[in-house]
Amino acid sequence: MPSASQTLPVVLTIAGTDPSGGAGIQADLKTFTSLGCFGTSVVTALVAQNTTGVQDVHPAPAQFVNKQILSVLEDMQVDALKTGMLFDAEITRTVCASLQTFYSESKSRALPPLIVDPVCVSTSGHTLLDSDATGTVIRDLLPLATIITPNKSEAELLLSWESAERKITSLSEMVESAKALSELGPKATLLKGGHLIVSSRQVEDLLRDRPDIKAFGSGIKERNTEILFEAEKHKKGGPFSSENTDLVVDVLYETQSQKWTIFARRRIDTTSTHGTGCTLSAAITCALGKGSSVVDAVLFATEYTHLAIETAVPLGRGSGPLNHMHGIQQRTIPLITSSTPFPFVRSLIRSTEDIWKDYVEHPFVKQLGEGTLPVESFKHFIKQDYIYLRYYARAYGLLGAKAQSFTTISSAAGIMNNIAEESKMHKAFCESWGITEKELIVGEESSATSAYGGYLLNIGLMGDEQKLRVAFAACLLGYGEVGLWLTAQSKIPGSKIYVQNNPYQRWIDDYAGPRFQEAVRTGIYQLEAQVAADPPSEQRYLELVDVWRTCTRLERNFWNMAMALD
Amino acid sequence: MPSASQTLPVVLTIAGTDPSGGAGIQADLKTFTSLGCFGTSVVTALVAQNTTGVQDVHPAPAQFVNKQILSVLEDMQVDALKTGMLFDAEITRTVCASLQTFYSESKSRALPPLIVDPVCVSTSGHTLLDSDATGTVIRDLLPLATIITPNKSEAELLLSWESAERKITSLSEMVESAKALSELGPKATLLKGGHLIVSSRQVEDLLRDRPDIKAFGSGIKERNTEILFEAEKHKKGGPFSSENTDLVVDVLYETQSQKWTIFARRRIDTTSTHGTGCTLSAAITCALGKGSSVVDAVLFATEYTHLAIETAVPLGRGSGPLNHMHGIQQRTIPLITSSTPFPFVRSLIRSTEDIWKDYVEHPFVKQLGEGTLPVESFKHFIKQDYIYLRYYARAYGLLGAKAQSFTTISSAAGIMNNIAEESKMHKAFCESWGITEKELIVGEESSATSAYGGYLLNIGLMGDEQKLRVAFAACLLGYGEVGLWLTAQSKIPGSKIYVQNNPYQRWIDDYAGPRFQEAVRTGIYQLEAQVAADPPSEQRYLELVDVWRTCTRLERNFWNMAMALD
Repeated sequence: MPSASQTLPVVLTIAGTDPSGGAGIQADLKTFTSLGCFGTSVVTALVAQNTTGVQDVHPAPAQFVNKQILSVLEDMQVDALKTGMLFDAEITRTVCASLQTFYSESKSRALPPLIVDPVCVSTSGHTLLDSDATGTVIRDLLPLATIITPNKSEAELLLSWESAERKITSLSEMVESAKALSELGPKATLLKGGHLIVSSRQVEDLLRDRPDIKAFGSGIKERNTEILFEAEKHKKGGPFSSENTDLVVDVLYETQSQKWTIFARRRIDTTSTHGTGCTLSAAITCALGKGSSVVDAVLFATEYTHLAIETAVPLGRGSGPLNHMHGIQQRTIPLITSSTPFPFVRSLIRSTEDIWKDYVEHPFVKQLGEGTLPVESFKHFIKQDYIYLRYYARAYGLLGAKAQSFTTISSAAGIMNNIAEESKMHKAFCESWGITEKELIVGEESSATSAYGGYLLNIGLMGDEQKLRVAFAACLLGYGEVGLWLTAQSKIPGSKIYVQNNPYQRWIDDYAGPRFQEAVRTGIYQLEAQVAADPPSEQRYLELVDVWRTCTRLERNFWNMAMALD
Repeated sequence: MPSASQTLPVVLTIAGTDPSGGAGIQADLKTFTSLGCFGTSVVTALVAQNTTGVQDVHPAPAQFVNKQILSVLEDMQVDALKTGMLFDAEITRTVCASLQTFYSESKSRALPPLIVDPVCVSTSGHTLLDSDATGTVIRDLLPLATIITPNKSEAELLLSWESAERKITSLSEMVESAKALSELGPKATLLKGGHLIVSSRQVEDLLRDRPDIKAFGSGIKERNTEILFEAEKHKKGGPFSSENTDLVVDVLYETQSQKWTIFARRRIDTTSTHGTGCTLSAAITCALGKGSSVVDAVLFATEYTHLAIETAVPLGRGSGPLNHMHGIQQRTIPLITSSTPFPFVRSLIRSTEDIWKDYVEHPFVKQLGEGTLPVESFKHFIKQDYIYLRYYARAYGLLGAKAQSFTTISSAAGIMNNIAEESKMHKAFCESWGITEKELIVGEESSATSAYGGYLLNIGLMGDEQKLRVAFAACLLGYGEVGLWLTAQSKIPGSKIYVQNNPYQRWIDDYAGPRFQEAVRTGIYQLEAQVAADPPSEQRYLELVDVWRTCTRLERNFWNMAMALD
């Protein structure tokens, strides 16, 4: 059984803030939430910034950073953590010391995967790391890291610190530099290529010369997908595939295995790039927190970040934030809990409140409860009901034909058989009202009956199991509600409705009785289970509501038909 | 056309922090993200806290709070904002002044809906608002508010400030107090009842005595839903519905319309309550930012928060955080973008990489390209293909029968007709290989053909439009890829594959040619559009992948059959 922390990975970010929500701990928390992780966060410095740049910085006292870290670590088991902007040497030292002390003193826990985003300069060009701090980062922090994620200028800064100045200007220099950075101590280095233009031809050349390098990416042709390249070429009318395209390439080097992997994707022409580095490292943190390998984590995070840039809605007057929410969608039906155990059926009933009431509290039902319903209406109703039940049973035949499990096959067969058995009782019941078997069999089918029966077969033909189950539900649940409603009404002092010695008592007993009510409950449980296992998209949910509404309306029309002797 | 800010509501929180992620701006940002809003946040004070309590507080300089507010407001148009913990009188005054100055100077913008959560005391009992500040809140902040959301003790504090001490100990006192609080200036007051036990009988009594009060809630019986109460009673075996249940009741009073609304739900026995107030007010902020009425916003937010408490995973050693993510789920297929225009087809192909390659680069295909395929294998293949095409056309008949639009009906009919027409050409083609019409018609059906044809009809019977479209795709897309692959191979220097003057040239031309390739592209576009409009749940996605994999395997087996003359 997975532990709580496996079910819900806990991740931590230690970084600065961005009130405008695109970068810093805010971007990290949005990423964590969008990727299904529980986010915790320690603020190193409050930053007054937005999409146009940094207006001011208010660092937290180093000891207060330590206090925040302990608030988190002493309370929760962290599965992965990242550092972003650490502001100065003192805070950097404090963070390292705090982590090392906590995890060395904790006998049961080792330092979880640590992702270091060595933030030095913001996208808008503002220096975010005190220059004294760079040495501290190199000496104290990088050796602790599972992976570091510098961009071009950060990599140049780190590589030039204790050696000659180094510039990274080509893909092959990126490949070399990723290895050189790993010599500073991290288990892996992801050198980000967002600030370097690389052509798809250069990538192809590199991969030909260096067969040891593995490559992933949307800008690189995958085997046997020519049709997708053709489809794209024709869709946009522009050149792609074999053409030379501008790519963004990130280079990963894993220290122990000495392996390179590159991650390529097409360069996007956009200004929505504020917080790209934070988002990428936060996504890597989530993936490592969930137990992914470094390569899988980086592949996942680069694709996530790429889509977050590409699907961003323009916001702010400068470099806008990413769309962290592209991978999630709203549920159409709430989760099942003990206090709301039937969210789907409840939402169906709520969505048809008025028609549902017209159906359950129909004059036919009331008059039946009061014993004042004209006998001819009742007889017309039970004759048509006989015909309807044949449709209903046949539609269960379609459910059986669609079934994906023997459980459904058996349940469909059971219901078909029950209906066939009940038809005999129905015949006997009709006979007690003076309706002969012949009348039942050659009886003319009302339009309301044809409409409802035909609709069930239509849904049975058109949709899948889920839709057909909803189509069955309006009849089953509605008659169940009618049975309970009549019983409840009969108990209200002064009510004219009575269920004992009522001319229609047997009918009421059938639907209010334990056998039918059990079937109603089973129907509710099955419907909820089906929908919880296969939550409908918004379109599909609206289709299901439409099926429910139509059947509820057809049920109401069925009572109307009986009263009008249609 | 909706503006960008309507598409993506921008919301702002001004509050303290919680490193452990359950309360403060962290809970707000998680709520905002989970509810599809773009979150911005201004920190009033760094708080070292976790689920066990508050360890320390480091307030931001008031002027730095002002700077953060301006970073947000000057850059983005905020659709709704909330205030939480404001720490002291100076920060409270600064926040009020900052908002009033910005919106009075801005000619085009009025103050958006402002939700004031008058945080004074944390769940763990720690005082979070300087006592001098309460007067400032009352004087400066409450009059600006669209809605205030005090709990019992906050309401008592606010009501006792300039009058005699007031205690709230019953539902009817809550009703009175909500009105009294509104006299302090806010447009609406939501008095939260989490700290007061109210029975469902007390609620029923109140609603009988006060028919002017509207009520919502999961603990209150809704009309005509007896079947759900019965279903629940039997499910849990415990008492519910008409029994007397402990409820949590929040009371809303709207100042201008002088209307009360109450929101009830069953009390949950849990320790996961850290950040409940933050979460509720953040959810109200989102709803108001999206344009909801106050009543709808509160209804939505109370249900959201209730489920967040009920679905929480235990975390931390004290009062754990809520599950902010209960209303979202991960997409199974990424969004369509210009750089990844075919995410569904790509993921299908990736999911069957090996079989797909076996199919596209099958020895049958290679030998056909090299002209070395035994004539008997080719003849066997085209005879079986004739039989297969009849299945394929019939399965399109099922698509037509399932169609929800005339577009699909017309497209299904078109394809059926094309196949019928091509069968004549197929006959002529077979004749050119010495296969008579009679051989075609009475020819024995191979098992591979029956298996594949039967599978298409099976999917056509069992599933819906979406599933059947995937079943068709493996044949259409695969033959398209084969056509392109043979053409590409023929161009590689030294390749043995040639497509001109090949004994099988006409077959290759058919599938590599523009007419078939256009059909392939149309198939890809339709599949992506269908899936984008109706994103599959995880279960449904796995079913679709299974259909694709099965059809790819059946295609490969079809080539095998031809080579083995099965």
